[in-house]
Amino acid sequence: MRHKAVFYHAGCPVCVEAEQQLAQALDPARYEVEIVHLGDARGRLADAESAGVRSVPALVIDGQPFHINFGAALADLR
Amino acid sequence: MRHKAVFYHAGCPVCVEAEQQLAQALDPARYEVEIVHLGDARGRLADAESAGVRSVPALVIDGQPFHINFGAALADLR
Repeated sequence: MRHKAVFYHAGCPVCVEAEQQLAQALDPARYEVEIVHLGDARGRLADAESAGVRSVPALVIDGQPFHINFGAALADLR
Repeated sequence: MRHKAVFYHAGCPVCVEAEQQLAQALDPARYEVEIVHLGDARGRLADAESAGVRSVPALVIDGQPFHINFGAALADLR
């Protein structure tokens, strides 16, 4: 089964670095990675929150949130 | 060129989850992943610190540190 990963970010420098170095490092044979910019796609904020995301950048893998360093609090993106 | 990733942890539940879900998700064709338990390998604390690691679990990719959630402060492992 292919795993589902969603990388949530807000375009911040910390986010860009995490996307380039970490989100894009996942094995494409096993992981389908979706990149979501929460500043542009505000309709996805609720998805991120319900997955337990509290800050960006964050990577949600099979429903589990991993916060990577700290760019911005989710509350500040509303 | 194959990239070098070092996953630093301390055996905590947050660390184990990050190792299983994130460190092992990296593409083995592009990344060589080393797993370092800083509780067992205290001699590696200095390496982690000089890479900028402040807490575990953390993944250092090509020298850049990514802190993943929060398990323990590096200072508490000394």
